[in-house]
Amino acid sequence: MGTVSNVLNHPEKVLPDTVSKVLASIDSLGFIRNDAARQLRAGRSKTIGLVVLDVSNPFFTAVARGAEDKANAAGLSVLLGNSDDDVTRESAYLDLFEEQRVHGVLVSPFGEIGPRLEDLRRRGIPAVLVDRSGDDSRFSSVSVDDVAGGRLAVEHLLAQGRTRIAFLAGSSDIRQVRERLQGARDAIATHPGSTLEVIDVEALTVIAGRIAGEQLLARSAAERPDGIFCSNDLVAVGVLQALVMLGNVRIPEEIALVGYDDIDFASATVVPLTSIRQPAQLIGQTAIEILLEEADDPSLEPRHVVFQPELVVRHSTAGNQR
Amino acid sequence: MGTVSNVLNHPEKVLPDTVSKVLASIDSLGFIRNDAARQLRAGRSKTIGLVVLDVSNPFFTAVARGAEDKANAAGLSVLLGNSDDDVTRESAYLDLFEEQRVHGVLVSPFGEIGPRLEDLRRRGIPAVLVDRSGDDSRFSSVSVDDVAGGRLAVEHLLAQGRTRIAFLAGSSDIRQVRERLQGARDAIATHPGSTLEVIDVEALTVIAGRIAGEQLLARSAAERPDGIFCSNDLVAVGVLQALVMLGNVRIPEEIALVGYDDIDFASATVVPLTSIRQPAQLIGQTAIEILLEEADDPSLEPRHVVFQPELVVRHSTAGNQR
Repeated sequence: MGTVSNVLNHPEKVLPDTVSKVLASIDSLGFIRNDAARQLRAGRSKTIGLVVLDVSNPFFTAVARGAEDKANAAGLSVLLGNSDDDVTRESAYLDLFEEQRVHGVLVSPFGEIGPRLEDLRRRGIPAVLVDRSGDDSRFSSVSVDDVAGGRLAVEHLLAQGRTRIAFLAGSSDIRQVRERLQGARDAIATHPGSTLEVIDVEALTVIAGRIAGEQLLARSAAERPDGIFCSNDLVAVGVLQALVMLGNVRIPEEIALVGYDDIDFASATVVPLTSIRQPAQLIGQTAIEILLEEADDPSLEPRHVVFQPELVVRHSTAGNQR
Repeated sequence: MGTVSNVLNHPEKVLPDTVSKVLASIDSLGFIRNDAARQLRAGRSKTIGLVVLDVSNPFFTAVARGAEDKANAAGLSVLLGNSDDDVTRESAYLDLFEEQRVHGVLVSPFGEIGPRLEDLRRRGIPAVLVDRSGDDSRFSSVSVDDVAGGRLAVEHLLAQGRTRIAFLAGSSDIRQVRERLQGARDAIATHPGSTLEVIDVEALTVIAGRIAGEQLLARSAAERPDGIFCSNDLVAVGVLQALVMLGNVRIPEEIALVGYDDIDFASATVVPLTSIRQPAQLIGQTAIEILLEEADDPSLEPRHVVFQPELVVRHSTAGNQR
């Protein structure tokens, strides 16, 4: 074995093995932990990193649940980071997961993170995009056809005789929002006489939905839309709270309402909510399956799995049929 | 500097600094990543680990939100692990966080983890218990008085004239469940003629609540309780779905219902839900504050912060007053 100065002068002679043996032996006397060393030795940890846009959205916790179940079965743990629709936080989590040499990363991306994921891949950390259809075809993805989902939602409102549709949108930085809007526009385009108003909401949360609902209440009844399609169920729940509880608006007689995601609460709301169902747990499971295969064999070609969304009709559009 | 064999024989001579310099220099030539080394060098990472019982419970995501906001302000990231009421998973996350030499750990404990947390403390990783009142006084804790919460809930049902109370309990391994039950028993004890039936639910989830509700529907109306107190709002939402939508039970006329946590959805349910409010975000923020102080000064005495819960009365117990 060489001296430490040799190590410094001739790094090419040092194998990771040697270094980790040093560290491990030091640890046994309690001077320094050998866990980081163990990670160096093993090459990667037994962890999968998952970055979601909003951990308080039941859609994402259902995705996480699916991912955890599949990962646990393979002896791995999932660590969850909440980017909160913020590129800085998203990037901080990817840095962390890289430092920890995770087994792989699932990410529901907010910004443009292709180059960052390329970095990770060069470091031997595969990444799978979750809930994002694959225009970035360099990375495998598991998603739902959001254009079809938007079309389903608005075609259903039009079929219920509604013509003045409002889309309650979140940030257009979120691809899912843009695609659901595209689907909504497609539906409107085939129905002459119908209109689509896009109303910004500050975030895809219950509170932001409540505020949007209050703003609609401030309009005269004639100026309100007769059909509302919300970017997700949280916003729809907030809108419901405002319209029904503050405004005594009759749903669906005066305004019909469609959410998105079909979260567990959608069927328990004050007026049970029509929604677009996404197979959230299956998305998480499938993403882990692909990730594990890519971790074992980095030469695999990227795959793109796209699930079809499903319309679930309840009281908020169809009246007394639950 | 000594030889590597010296290192092995005389570990007391090796300072972490030396080791990390070695590792860092190796990295510069691309042989090995220096991130694990950087963690060794810095002593601890910029991460805080948070282990919650159920990430799909909005109470815990609100705690996480509070923790994230406070941690981010201090330049730290929060990684979330979901123990899912499972000691094996809880322990796997604590192992992971130890390996990563996190800055500190917040944990809403499921099992008896005192000895494990002592380990972490010896390694220089402080821990704060979240949502658990401190009988384990060796560790700081931030919690809500769950006995008082249980008492508030059942005293309210008794004040509404209900006498046959059912408590829909989760696992008695969960301290919060035991304490809420204790509070319920205290209230019953002071009201002669009232009874408390404890009904097990399989988990503190919407689905488990729905199943419990269906079992109540299978009883004759006379054999049903006239007041139900649920361990949390998720269970209460499930019970509501079953009683109202499947059974056409009138809430609160036939059965009055109280949940726990006052999650965002509680006011938007098919019958708006009376609940016990806990200051979830504040719990997360306070826990981070204490953790950061203990990370800076390990000699600090453990502190125990206990918030008082609050009764929020809505339609599910009080009828048409929203």
